[in-house]
Amino acid sequence: MKIETVEQQVRYAETDRMQVVHHANYLLWFEIGRTQLLASAGYAYHELEASGTRFPVIEYGCRLIGSADYGDRVRIDTYISQLRSRTVEFAYEVFNGDKRIATGMTKHIAADLNQKPRRMDAALLDALRVYVAVSTEPQNR
Amino acid sequence: MKIETVEQQVRYAETDRMQVVHHANYLLWFEIGRTQLLASAGYAYHELEASGTRFPVIEYGCRLIGSADYGDRVRIDTYISQLRSRTVEFAYEVFNGDKRIATGMTKHIAADLNQKPRRMDAALLDALRVYVAVSTEPQNR
Amino acid sequence: MKIETVEQQVRYAETDRMQVVHHANYLLWFEIGRTQLLASAGYAYHELEASGTRFPVIEYGCRLIGSADYGDRVRIDTYISQLRSRTVEFAYEVFNGDKRIATGMTKHIAADLNQKPRRMDAALLDALRVYVAVSTEPQNR
Amino acid sequence: MKIETVEQQVRYAETDRMQVVHHANYLLWFEIGRTQLLASAGYAYHELEASGTRFPVIEYGCRLIGSADYGDRVRIDTYISQLRSRTVEFAYEVFNGDKRIATGMTKHIAADLNQKPRRMDAALLDALRVYVAVSTEPQNR
Repeated sequence: MKIETVEQQVRYAETDRMQVVHHANYLLWFEIGRTQLLASAGYAYHELEASGTRFPVIEYGCRLIGSADYGDRVRIDTYISQLRSRTVEFAYEVFNGDKRIATGMTKHIAADLNQKPRRMDAALLDALRVYVAVSTEPQNR
Repeated sequence: MKIETVEQQVRYAETDRMQVVHHANYLLWFEIGRTQLLASAGYAYHELEASGTRFPVIEYGCRLIGSADYGDRVRIDTYISQLRSRTVEFAYEVFNGDKRIATGMTKHIAADLNQKPRRMDAALLDALRVYVAVSTEPQNR
Repeated sequence: MKIETVEQQVRYAETDRMQVVHHANYLLWFEIGRTQLLASAGYAYHELEASGTRFPVIEYGCRLIGSADYGDRVRIDTYISQLRSRTVEFAYEVFNGDKRIATGMTKHIAADLNQKPRRMDAALLDALRVYVAVSTEPQNR
Repeated sequence: MKIETVEQQVRYAETDRMQVVHHANYLLWFEIGRTQLLASAGYAYHELEASGTRFPVIEYGCRLIGSADYGDRVRIDTYISQLRSRTVEFAYEVFNGDKRIATGMTKHIAADLNQKPRRMDAALLDALRVYVAVSTEPQNR
């Protein structure tokens, strides 16, 4: 199983008046992690969209265990917790230094440009399969 | 059981290149619903914070069933799915016209300004209790 | 000259670690003001876009005189500071209670769906003309 | 004169329904450019804030000449267009590949934690001076 890792400098605008990163912004970091995983798998998402396959989000979840603030650099680890012919579920772990500050998941349906569900082709499924966690238990809920 | 209802005009900036509202923005709508519920309960959140009680988010989840676009007006219904002395879980349903487009939840811990967990006082718990759903089943996951 | 007025509750997510609204969010408020002005003029912007006319932003500016925080309610006054056949410049004043906290402008080109500039038709120009400030001096820079 | 250069992958969430980056997000890129310039100058902004000096934005402006979309990588060049003892004005140029897509400026006042204006100390001014453009003409308006 491969894990994709990407780092991000916390943006000032990502913080809120509690002086930590606003919880919604973890989803934007997840999106960056997923973007990079797909690119590493040979399927840059902007090219997938251009060729008529979209992965709209149908579910997401996140647990916040710690926090991050402006000045911090976070690391987002991304892998796949479930892969089916029409859906894919990504799992994420966010670290601030050594500390894991969040875990999360996003579930996507494969759809055409009219939002109609479609099967992913075999080559795409194969490319994604190397990122699938072996565990069959639910992850990151 | 009371439900708090608030409406929002979709902002242009809330949409993304898929020409629907980006999934992270539902969390901002949930925040508006929760803000209004607390205000209706007599505990405006900015006053709660000023008096030393914060509700940082420790978990959130959302299922997207439909979508909304610029030009739409959405309605957010907010209630409480679980209330304990130190944690509160809000549940949300988002409607676009007659169609329910999303359900979600956010779980919060009551904390002081140093992020140390604290018990909510009896008056606050009483004020929130009227918004608690009677169902004991898990909601909106 | 007509002025369009709209109010907004400050969102928690709009604040940053300085415990005021992040400066970029004034642009989102301007967008709400402009959306409402166009709707009042009989040209809801989502309908304009659907009919093939877009107003992409080609320039913007903002001066911040005061600030707003979560818990505040702001008022955005919008009018038109310059109107030509292919461009329109909106001007904005933002108030927090009695205090004017920001002024700003956004300049837009009328374009078709391929981003090619186009003349606005006479009916649209007439509808917008009532919002044009009589002053010929530069506004809100 | 030194120029600070930083690159950013366009985020999906930064786009809007016009399928380009929403104009407000250029301000977030400017913030990243400015953050990096200050760090390179030896004054990481999160440390400046921690030591009691803030640079709240009092004015900003941007001209959009081109656009960027998800899948693009943009480069932000940052320098200083005006430096005084109590104010600093940063200037920005954003490139998408070879094409310059935006120019902009943000003006800041040096303030203490109570938002009271203060003079920057000589060492800070010296560190910033190497980024000041020699031109005395107004930039990027």
